[in-house]
Amino acid sequence: MTTKLDVQGLANPSCPAPTETDRITLSHGAGAGATSRLFETILWPQFRNDTLGVRHDGAVFPAGPAGERLAFSTDTFVVHPIEFPGGDIGSLAVHGTLNDLAMCGAEPLGLSCALILEEGLPLATLERIVASMAQAAAAAGVAIVTGDTKVVERGKGDGIYVNTAGVGRVPDGRVVHPGRVRAGDAILVSGPLGDHGAAVLSVREGIEFDADIASDSAWLGGLVEHLFNAVPELHCLRDPTRGGLGAVLHEIGGAAQLAIEIDESALPVREPVRVICELLGLDPLFLASEGRCVAFVPERDAERALAALRSHALGAHAARIGTVQPGPPRVVVRTRAGTRRLLLLPAGDPLPRIC
Amino acid sequence: MTTKLDVQGLANPSCPAPTETDRITLSHGAGAGATSRLFETILWPQFRNDTLGVRHDGAVFPAGPAGERLAFSTDTFVVHPIEFPGGDIGSLAVHGTLNDLAMCGAEPLGLSCALILEEGLPLATLERIVASMAQAAAAAGVAIVTGDTKVVERGKGDGIYVNTAGVGRVPDGRVVHPGRVRAGDAILVSGPLGDHGAAVLSVREGIEFDADIASDSAWLGGLVEHLFNAVPELHCLRDPTRGGLGAVLHEIGGAAQLAIEIDESALPVREPVRVICELLGLDPLFLASEGRCVAFVPERDAERALAALRSHALGAHAARIGTVQPGPPRVVVRTRAGTRRLLLLPAGDPLPRIC
Repeated sequence: MTTKLDVQGLANPSCPAPTETDRITLSHGAGAGATSRLFETILWPQFRNDTLGVRHDGAVFPAGPAGERLAFSTDTFVVHPIEFPGGDIGSLAVHGTLNDLAMCGAEPLGLSCALILEEGLPLATLERIVASMAQAAAAAGVAIVTGDTKVVERGKGDGIYVNTAGVGRVPDGRVVHPGRVRAGDAILVSGPLGDHGAAVLSVREGIEFDADIASDSAWLGGLVEHLFNAVPELHCLRDPTRGGLGAVLHEIGGAAQLAIEIDESALPVREPVRVICELLGLDPLFLASEGRCVAFVPERDAERALAALRSHALGAHAARIGTVQPGPPRVVVRTRAGTRRLLLLPAGDPLPRIC
Repeated sequence: MTTKLDVQGLANPSCPAPTETDRITLSHGAGAGATSRLFETILWPQFRNDTLGVRHDGAVFPAGPAGERLAFSTDTFVVHPIEFPGGDIGSLAVHGTLNDLAMCGAEPLGLSCALILEEGLPLATLERIVASMAQAAAAAGVAIVTGDTKVVERGKGDGIYVNTAGVGRVPDGRVVHPGRVRAGDAILVSGPLGDHGAAVLSVREGIEFDADIASDSAWLGGLVEHLFNAVPELHCLRDPTRGGLGAVLHEIGGAAQLAIEIDESALPVREPVRVICELLGLDPLFLASEGRCVAFVPERDAERALAALRSHALGAHAARIGTVQPGPPRVVVRTRAGTRRLLLLPAGDPLPRIC
């Protein structure tokens, strides 16, 4: 393995918290602490409603008085660079929103695509990104049914930003959201953590490996349907994107008002990802995946759920990583040494524009 | 009336077309010629599907095998400046997407809000924009049910960009899209044209008027329901936003493969808007409105439709402006002098970032 390392501009997650000013900072985009505070202090007080209050990856609501339940989600992608090993901003934007629908237990009905293009973007780049979106959508059997394109002046964007929104239908009987999580639930992950974050960082920081580092970006709908078939009683699903597994566990534990205990030795992390984390002083627990999910299932279903995940191509390396516990919301890691430590959210943003 | 005029940076729509290069130019965001070509040459070949092929303001599709019909639309707002007389980027983003749903004949079910914040944006500005979104959504009786926030580095955005997407339900029996337009249809507009464009320009170009110039930004759902009650046979609706009435007529005529003839003397344009257009060499036909709609109705329903529009607060100055004609797609203006001229789309973009 050869490495070429440039850590300039990389903040260390153990650095002191940036001063909270009266202005937006990069920390507000980190997906963890400051992002949550921004939502709680500015957005929630204004937007407050029961559907948004569920604090899930997407909204679920009835389509009409006697209607089916719809899922609705949106995400904007500002990843830098826009092309990286294993994907690009286009496929990522399709996978990201489709996965948010899947995390609501929904089958997708349609996607939107809204582009912000910076003056000067090569048309050839746009063509590649759009083709990548089309391919990712087709692979999931979903059409991009509506869209919008805006252009901003040079220096007011960064090549291309992509927003996708998605609408899906939630089959009868499926209710998956943080409020369903119970003490005793087993916590599973569908595969190794942090590949996406490591892939983007490796390009951005100019680190070259002989070993493969590629984003895990993938559509999870097929895997999720497979899991629902095995375990209809699934309590909650979440994809550990921006903020990684650490942010997911804090969010779900906080929303469910329960403690979460995970086993460090059970966490699946690929060796090259572990190495890049050591080089850059990052914790793989906070590194983004874009083709993995975390599942909360009743203890009695844990083995069946794990078997179902492992029998699917995208879940071959699934693992049980912990258990939900009674008690106040907190995330506890049982270390390899047998001790227990509290997992705190990083205060700053070690990884701006990871998705 | 006092004016303070600075036209620096304002391109004239009668200037020669910019050279089409292999890069994105501001013209690609103009909402007319180059925007359409971008869609037809890059997006459509990849995304091609029947729903998108309808080329309406939003997509309409069934929610399931036996499902109700859903409408789904998205728009990103990059207006500069973000606050202007009569509105701001927040209320505009809510009105814009809700109006796209209304143009599909849909009643809104929920909105999403995805923000791109530039590092350094004052939190107080964000608070005002978010409050404005909440107020606009509440006035329409719709909740913002899901969302996303991204932060980009200073110099990679411009304060705040707002994407909204919306989901709505289309009541049984309503089918409104360009394909339903027929030769002989009357063309109505719900009110004066171009107020939004004039308001944004007046701030941007530093033009001050004693006369009121304010954006017409408004939610059209109530007006549209009122119109459907009077004229269930309504053929098509469209809001003349970016690109103005001129772009709408070209799009609808092109999609319906019909000619459109409008009467210059019938076009409602407020006096201050007319003056600002004369000062800047702009045609009010291509100036954006954000609270008006264009309705295509069967000739036999024209009087009833006009009366219905005029009996609603937002349609008090509605007017019949023309008629759909057989023949190849083209837009013809009957001038005040009694002559007939072809209305061509401006080649460049006189008004970047108007919405």
